[in-house]
Amino acid sequence: MKGFSVQGFRASGISCGIKGKGLKDLALIYSERPATVAGLFTTNRVKAAPVLLDMERIRGGAAQAIIVNSGNANACTGRKGLEDAREMAGLVAARAGIDEGLVLVASTGVIGEPLPMERIRSGMLPLFEALSEDGWDDAARAIMTTDTRPKVFFGKKRIGDDDVPLLGIAKGAGMIMPNMATMLAFFVTDAGIDREALQEMLGESVERTFNRITVDGEMSTNDTVLILANGMGRRLEGKDYSSFKELLMEGCETLSRLIVEDGEGATKIVEVEVRGAFNEGDAKRAAFRIANSLLVKTAIYGCDPNWGRIMAALGSVLEDLEEERVRIEIMGLPVVEGGMASPERNEERLREAMGGRRVHILVDLGLGSGEARVLTTDLTPEYVHINAAYRT
Amino acid sequence: MKGFSVQGFRASGISCGIKGKGLKDLALIYSERPATVAGLFTTNRVKAAPVLLDMERIRGGAAQAIIVNSGNANACTGRKGLEDAREMAGLVAARAGIDEGLVLVASTGVIGEPLPMERIRSGMLPLFEALSEDGWDDAARAIMTTDTRPKVFFGKKRIGDDDVPLLGIAKGAGMIMPNMATMLAFFVTDAGIDREALQEMLGESVERTFNRITVDGEMSTNDTVLILANGMGRRLEGKDYSSFKELLMEGCETLSRLIVEDGEGATKIVEVEVRGAFNEGDAKRAAFRIANSLLVKTAIYGCDPNWGRIMAALGSVLEDLEEERVRIEIMGLPVVEGGMASPERNEERLREAMGGRRVHILVDLGLGSGEARVLTTDLTPEYVHINAAYRT
Repeated sequence: MKGFSVQGFRASGISCGIKGKGLKDLALIYSERPATVAGLFTTNRVKAAPVLLDMERIRGGAAQAIIVNSGNANACTGRKGLEDAREMAGLVAARAGIDEGLVLVASTGVIGEPLPMERIRSGMLPLFEALSEDGWDDAARAIMTTDTRPKVFFGKKRIGDDDVPLLGIAKGAGMIMPNMATMLAFFVTDAGIDREALQEMLGESVERTFNRITVDGEMSTNDTVLILANGMGRRLEGKDYSSFKELLMEGCETLSRLIVEDGEGATKIVEVEVRGAFNEGDAKRAAFRIANSLLVKTAIYGCDPNWGRIMAALGSVLEDLEEERVRIEIMGLPVVEGGMASPERNEERLREAMGGRRVHILVDLGLGSGEARVLTTDLTPEYVHINAAYRT
Repeated sequence: MKGFSVQGFRASGISCGIKGKGLKDLALIYSERPATVAGLFTTNRVKAAPVLLDMERIRGGAAQAIIVNSGNANACTGRKGLEDAREMAGLVAARAGIDEGLVLVASTGVIGEPLPMERIRSGMLPLFEALSEDGWDDAARAIMTTDTRPKVFFGKKRIGDDDVPLLGIAKGAGMIMPNMATMLAFFVTDAGIDREALQEMLGESVERTFNRITVDGEMSTNDTVLILANGMGRRLEGKDYSSFKELLMEGCETLSRLIVEDGEGATKIVEVEVRGAFNEGDAKRAAFRIANSLLVKTAIYGCDPNWGRIMAALGSVLEDLEEERVRIEIMGLPVVEGGMASPERNEERLREAMGGRRVHILVDLGLGSGEARVLTTDLTPEYVHINAAYRT
């Protein structure tokens, strides 16, 4: 990912000793000039200190830097946690000589432990020294927790006579559920965009991407998606918005898919597609119920086309389900017709088709035109091992 | 469990070849005379054929026999499934010489496969021949699926000058969630009880017991709880009801606990107690959210007092949560005070205390007087193995 850059932005990622073993755990994203900012945050009632701080600060509409640590969530840390989050921002502001209100903060890791501020303070100098136009891979590594690889997106879109760039990094591998559970993503672009338009485009993109993935049905205290648009490139007009939104949607889609692909212990990526619901809400509920069903997820791990578990999951969440209208395909092969085993079902071929890394489940409810798509993983013994031992 | 009996009732359990390997898979409960019946069934919109049949039949208020097969759920089997369920009842009625409407049916096992009726037909003679006053252990074995042991309750309550007996058998080890997911339980008593009172007492008992357990958050298509009261013993009057209800509650409590203790792959039984909620509904939602959280369940498997995951679970479900009021104890030891790590928390003692088979989590929300208790298990690699391989 070296070589990608967006004018006016620099990034860095270093190790300051929070995670230990020399692992990168402190990241900085910095813009030469104040940028328009938009953001979305966890809907969990228990919000980490940096989330509370950022929610307040992005109301101002501008930001110039984002500092992120991994290894500690700074959640459930009370007043001290808020002071620490503010100090993190203050350290960046002081060193950069910018207004403290222009610095945003994000944290990810264990909940309930105080931030080791001494380490963060001592990391400031190397963090700034490492800033570079192509420091995005380092930054992406420094925000990882149980992730096995950094997640970076870079894309460009021709708008008018300009190539408008979008660069994003993300982390997230467990505690992944709608409403962006334990997921951090940061985007930058040099386009000039109105704040309200930026917030609206971000909201729509996230709803269809980051809010449609689930690894374990958990919702985090720290989820954050931020975008900075520093206006050093093309100034977008209303007619340009649809093009930029396509680019943003692509960025969100790519990063959310990378998160699922790195799902804790996952051996398979599962796309659950529900069609024929009365409305999109029903389709989304049904798709999430299937995607979060332990019995469905374990069946997929075992390459078992156990469609009865899908039917049971549907019936547990959809009051208006009409069993005899349900049609199910796995990997494009017929499984259920009219709510019963399809006469064309070939168990052997199904097992074989489910043996690969990608599994596609299509459910047609036969009731209306509502549809939704959710990405998830299988559930494996490895997931249990990872999460039984996370803190130790 | 040999030696327990209730006057006028006989039971049997035999192998008719549905499960194979000589495993028992067909059970019969038979009363000398028609009994008052009450029942509760899955709220899943996808209901198995026997559930649909029983829901209709118990409206009549009387039943004399219950036939149960394991190894096949007779769910998602369409019109043929209903015909098969009716035939199962008809076979019993014909052999016993009773009205077909007095025979109830239950099935548990794989969804979506047609019932092997030939085997059930051929099992009728041995099933009747095996009927015995103390055949309850055999019957309890014949309704098992992934259960590792039969589940039987027997209790007596002194009411007036009589000892009123209650005998129950149950099965269930996975797909266990509120609303009685994949759970069968059958009770018999010789008391004479009005139908409406019986239904009401059963409903209240189940709500506090079978509806407060969860192994994996799944809801089945086949859950059934039935009670037969054949009136050959004491005729209960209004003043006797509270005593009988205590007995029924004890029976439901015991069997529901046995189900959790036999939870698929479980190494620990976890009691989640939530107090101080605004109302019982909030307390129940919070307790279930914690009990169904994969991250909490895996932490418990790892003996890790990872309270941050409990806080995140609470915040994801309770809109009115006030983080700074939350207090958490694990095994009676302080963990969280005022929404943060308790200063008296001793990680080492906590780990040690979580090392046993039973784990108790107390959450005090500090908001009101609503409380609820939910029983669950930890989540283990073994659960995944069992459910990845169930059908094979």
